Amino acid sequence: MIHFDTDYMEGAHPLVMQRLVETNLEQTAGYGCDAYCAEARQLVAKALGIEYTGSADGYQIHFLAGGTQTNSTMIDALLRQHEGVMAAESAHINVHESGAIEATGHKVLVLPSRNGKVNASDVESYINEFYADETYEHMVAPGMLYISYPTEYGTLYSKTELENLHDVCSKVGIPLYIDGARLGYGLACDECDITLQDLPSLCDVFYIGGTKVGALFGECAVARPGLLSHLFPLIKQHGALMAKGRLLGIQFGTLFTDGLYLKIARHAVDMAMKLKKGFTDNGFQLFLDSPTNQQFFVLPNETMDRLAKTCSFEIWGTRGKTHTTVRFVTSWATTEESVDILLKEIEKEHEQTN
Amino acid sequence: MIHFDTDYMEGAHPLVMQRLVETNLEQTAGYGCDAYCAEARQLVAKALGIEYTGSADGYQIHFLAGGTQTNSTMIDALLRQHEGVMAAESAHINVHESGAIEATGHKVLVLPSRNGKVNASDVESYINEFYADETYEHMVAPGMLYISYPTEYGTLYSKTELENLHDVCSKVGIPLYIDGARLGYGLACDECDITLQDLPSLCDVFYIGGTKVGALFGECAVARPGLLSHLFPLIKQHGALMAKGRLLGIQFGTLFTDGLYLKIARHAVDMAMKLKKGFTDNGFQLFLDSPTNQQFFVLPNETMDRLAKTCSFEIWGTRGKTHTTVRFVTSWATTEESVDILLKEIEKEHEQTN
Amino acid sequence: MIHFDTDYMEGAHPLVMQRLVETNLEQTAGYGCDAYCAEARQLVAKALGIEYTGSADGYQIHFLAGGTQTNSTMIDALLRQHEGVMAAESAHINVHESGAIEATGHKVLVLPSRNGKVNASDVESYINEFYADETYEHMVAPGMLYISYPTEYGTLYSKTELENLHDVCSKVGIPLYIDGARLGYGLACDECDITLQDLPSLCDVFYIGGTKVGALFGECAVARPGLLSHLFPLIKQHGALMAKGRLLGIQFGTLFTDGLYLKIARHAVDMAMKLKKGFTDNGFQLFLDSPTNQQFFVLPNETMDRLAKTCSFEIWGTRGKTHTTVRFVTSWATTEESVDILLKEIEKEHEQTN
Amino acid sequence: MIHFDTDYMEGAHPLVMQRLVETNLEQTAGYGCDAYCAEARQLVAKALGIEYTGSADGYQIHFLAGGTQTNSTMIDALLRQHEGVMAAESAHINVHESGAIEATGHKVLVLPSRNGKVNASDVESYINEFYADETYEHMVAPGMLYISYPTEYGTLYSKTELENLHDVCSKVGIPLYIDGARLGYGLACDECDITLQDLPSLCDVFYIGGTKVGALFGECAVARPGLLSHLFPLIKQHGALMAKGRLLGIQFGTLFTDGLYLKIARHAVDMAMKLKKGFTDNGFQLFLDSPTNQQFFVLPNETMDRLAKTCSFEIWGTRGKTHTTVRFVTSWATTEESVDILLKEIEKEHEQTN
Repeated sequence: MIHFDTDYMEGAHPLVMQRLVETNLEQTAGYGCDAYCAEARQLVAKALGIEYTGSADGYQIHFLAGGTQTNSTMIDALLRQHEGVMAAESAHINVHESGAIEATGHKVLVLPSRNGKVNASDVESYINEFYADETYEHMVAPGMLYISYPTEYGTLYSKTELENLHDVCSKVGIPLYIDGARLGYGLACDECDITLQDLPSLCDVFYIGGTKVGALFGECAVARPGLLSHLFPLIKQHGALMAKGRLLGIQFGTLFTDGLYLKIARHAVDMAMKLKKGFTDNGFQLFLDSPTNQQFFVLPNETMDRLAKTCSFEIWGTRGKTHTTVRFVTSWATTEESVDILLKEIEKEHEQTN
Repeated sequence: MIHFDTDYMEGAHPLVMQRLVETNLEQTAGYGCDAYCAEARQLVAKALGIEYTGSADGYQIHFLAGGTQTNSTMIDALLRQHEGVMAAESAHINVHESGAIEATGHKVLVLPSRNGKVNASDVESYINEFYADETYEHMVAPGMLYISYPTEYGTLYSKTELENLHDVCSKVGIPLYIDGARLGYGLACDECDITLQDLPSLCDVFYIGGTKVGALFGECAVARPGLLSHLFPLIKQHGALMAKGRLLGIQFGTLFTDGLYLKIARHAVDMAMKLKKGFTDNGFQLFLDSPTNQQFFVLPNETMDRLAKTCSFEIWGTRGKTHTTVRFVTSWATTEESVDILLKEIEKEHEQTN
Repeated sequence: MIHFDTDYMEGAHPLVMQRLVETNLEQTAGYGCDAYCAEARQLVAKALGIEYTGSADGYQIHFLAGGTQTNSTMIDALLRQHEGVMAAESAHINVHESGAIEATGHKVLVLPSRNGKVNASDVESYINEFYADETYEHMVAPGMLYISYPTEYGTLYSKTELENLHDVCSKVGIPLYIDGARLGYGLACDECDITLQDLPSLCDVFYIGGTKVGALFGECAVARPGLLSHLFPLIKQHGALMAKGRLLGIQFGTLFTDGLYLKIARHAVDMAMKLKKGFTDNGFQLFLDSPTNQQFFVLPNETMDRLAKTCSFEIWGTRGKTHTTVRFVTSWATTEESVDILLKEIEKEHEQTN
Repeated sequence: MIHFDTDYMEGAHPLVMQRLVETNLEQTAGYGCDAYCAEARQLVAKALGIEYTGSADGYQIHFLAGGTQTNSTMIDALLRQHEGVMAAESAHINVHESGAIEATGHKVLVLPSRNGKVNASDVESYINEFYADETYEHMVAPGMLYISYPTEYGTLYSKTELENLHDVCSKVGIPLYIDGARLGYGLACDECDITLQDLPSLCDVFYIGGTKVGALFGECAVARPGLLSHLFPLIKQHGALMAKGRLLGIQFGTLFTDGLYLKIARHAVDMAMKLKKGFTDNGFQLFLDSPTNQQFFVLPNETMDRLAKTCSFEIWGTRGKTHTTVRFVTSWATTEESVDILLKEIEKEHEQTN
């Protein structure tokens, strides 16, 4: 059985594992205060084209244990108590984090969205209508905007769309936060018109996802100068601190050496494109057109049932009585062989149904 | 430089690393719903002498990301909103968790303690005095008792002491929770009069520490039947959930195969005893008599300064103008060679000062 | 200027004020442990047709400081940490409580609604779809249903609708909670087909609103036997406790003597009906048909502007370029004279526009 | 039976009640946005010798529902998530608020204290030791200092002591907060060497207690310019907002007209001094020497039992086997007649025991 359920089904990229093994018996200080973390912060800063000095006034770069931990820590750090976070209805923080955001006391303020994306004019309207309401102090104030890049539907914002979102946020003085759990898979795809170096100026806080892109676990959060302070105890409070912090430094250090991060992400995208072409060439319908490692199709139920004998994938929702929307996900670890096996099944389906 | 600062300065036991490497490219489901976690739960259950069926009515066994995460998750799960957790002043949750317990809304109720230990009659008095106060509904109710085994001072409770604490708790219907961050180092030492099999009946909830005892990270929490339910979303809310949950299963599975957990813990204790003997044989004074892997000494300041050139350790507090209390910690990874180097320095000190 | 903005613009019913003055210099215990509260609880119990013994096993009757405090206390008491509260999008807890529910850690789960009402089949679908999703443990579980009676749009549920909602909730074992901030105005109107005595069996927890129905402040929360315990410290934590608790007892005692509560509510409804008839007889359009003390009209903007010179009311929303939806609210204190002045203006408008 | 249990056993001062009755049927806007609140804020500002303009940059003056609500709102507003509040062990927030502070996520950091008072050098030591600890980011940072004036033991800080505390706080940039639940009873007593006008410069935030000093309920919180913003939604979240906010404005407006607040507080202090003199003249022992409306005595148990037949008071603690510490509290409403009755009993006791 081959698995296309999601992109965190394997361990870490072999080079990451190798570095973990090589350094395993070294003794270092805990909680990220070690040379590996220091080096990794510099490597990340270099890739982002920013300067990292470690000063409280400069860019903040922190390694955290996982995606939900990063979201709950950073969002709680960014918001004041009377504020909530605006997000698409499909946003991970609104759906799949077991209420971790609300557990820190903050409401998720749902924006209209399409294929996982929100747009600047809707954000602006939301904010304007909020402050136009005389009773707004009885309501939860929009304190920041959360978007994911790529979105939960695998879609991307264009650079212009991101600039517009950031402009709207800046105008009212609230931060734009980008959840980059799958950031690599966005940056590595053809449709993407931004680079790592663009990110620091396109938003106020973002994180570079490791768990889904080559690491065993871990995310790297970056905040612009002057925005956040005293993050360390918050990271600990929210369960995002690793005792052996170097594990995160070693992993990110490896991923940001010789462009490994984007290289392995590109492989996942290539596999996703091959898979997509296989489905569409054989007459199967896209649910939406994703340029990244998550692919959504609308399949006849019998086709779905037969494919399920060879490989696993995620059921996304029913589509009338005869069809179902499904998600196939590739990762840095997906082999071309696995994709070929799947494509062969799809061809068989094509023949059978025609 | 050799480090005796603490017991989480190295990675994982080589056998643990080996298993992580061997399984690295396998595909499994996330969040602990995989075969490695299932197997590890059985191995842990066997070592504890309990039956684990996976049923909501039976024992609960969960793998969590780290110690603070485990404490904050389990304590929040055990307490009702009007309740707090009784603990020694030196308890990790009272001192070193950045307020993670209070962040979940609960007060730490400080008990009198000695060398990190609380005793049953103080607990009973606390509870009795609480309910004797007519205004008790205006105060935070004692909802559970937290102890650590070994304590933050490396000391141990005897089996009788544990039974007495459990009796007091049971009498008023509140759970006894044991923080076992260093559990192995307690169970493996000569003074210890309990076994892994005793734990399930000596308390209501406890966790077996992995981060400090052979794992890269991770703890295994065990709750008696009928006490807790719906832990999964709480684990996620509190930042204790790993996406690649199998990493925890693989680690605990390895640690609980062929008695590895206690075997490597025993090594740390042996090293600690050798180190202790070295200090005392050379005329240095114990701060308190710990049978486990943490050793506390009162050193003349010049001795301390000279030792600091060879090795690192933790300053625990000043002791008048001429002496300082220091902590030396061994771990499963401490080599006899390192201890010998340190002991040689101590002998030199002895000669110098006599 | 006459005010129809809302129903908490005046103080208390004169009989309530009289009792507060009469008892003013008496000395009583604080926090609701006085004879006035005890008597009031009995009077409320009698009106509800239930027995109140004060036992922890029986009905719970508590007096709390205000509506938001009551909602945040009771909802937090009813939910477990991984649960949220289902409610209509327009629900007071979802819109106008400054995030007080989320501040206690819980998500408001928005249900489809119409004129402020939710229906049983939507609730059932929500719950079924939740548990049908394999990843439901990553989502916030529906832990209770919140409805308001009357709703924020002045509309009412029929007895059958309430029974259906309660059945759906009971089937999955979650409580139905009724926010009765304006309960009197619902029970006193012609369309209403339930009585105070029906309430205890129609839901699990509800509160009888005082602030908007004759009291200076205060609500009376009632929970069915066996559902909640240890409410006192929670009431204090959530800011809902009054030091001079007797103030609440005296007020509710007066309101529940000689049927005062429903009598004064009926007056508000009579005034609302007269006002509604005046608007519709003169050709103005209802926004929706409310049988209670809140009336919603769609007015031409010029009419609205001219009326605003005589009286105040709430702007509910724009209705195209030429019209606006407005809300007029009556209360126990609204005088017939005020309504007549308003109606005279409306007649003038009618003549002017025809 | 005469009651000396506490100072919130009666309603409001008759002049306050009279104003509530006179204004009862007026219509005003809710939530403190009315002319009575506006006027009361000016009267309070005048009494404090400060200017109140309503600007976000100037002094903040808010009326809140009660003492616990005020503490939980203001402390949560003043602290960042990683900070706690330093306070005496006997502080109301540490003992008698049902965990309301922790419920907002903050730890109470206990300072050494004597008769309810903390001193500047202990505060300074606490802060210095905190930052001297290398692991301080794992601990809860001292984010503000809470004191009560008068304290829970009826004692007062001298002006110099307050200045020293404020200096220590200012030096490290954290606010000093004064809980003035019984402020009037402090300011009105002979020992007091500060005035209302001194308060704004002696601390950063304080509240003027109404519930215990002449109001039915309500406190007036004052914050120095530039310290706090967006308090309104926080006040609502913490249950401290009254829908009919004018009730607070009317009460404080009355209390701050013609010096009523201090006049009635002075009466309570006079009664307390008479009571104290009666006890000591008759040979009974002070537990501590309080200059305010709370008086503490050590009584032989038989004396205590006999007095309990005439009047009620609070048991503060046992004092060996034969004596008990008791608290007698007077208020603005205590009649000289009541005190005389009590004093007669004390004289009888004196005769009996000699």
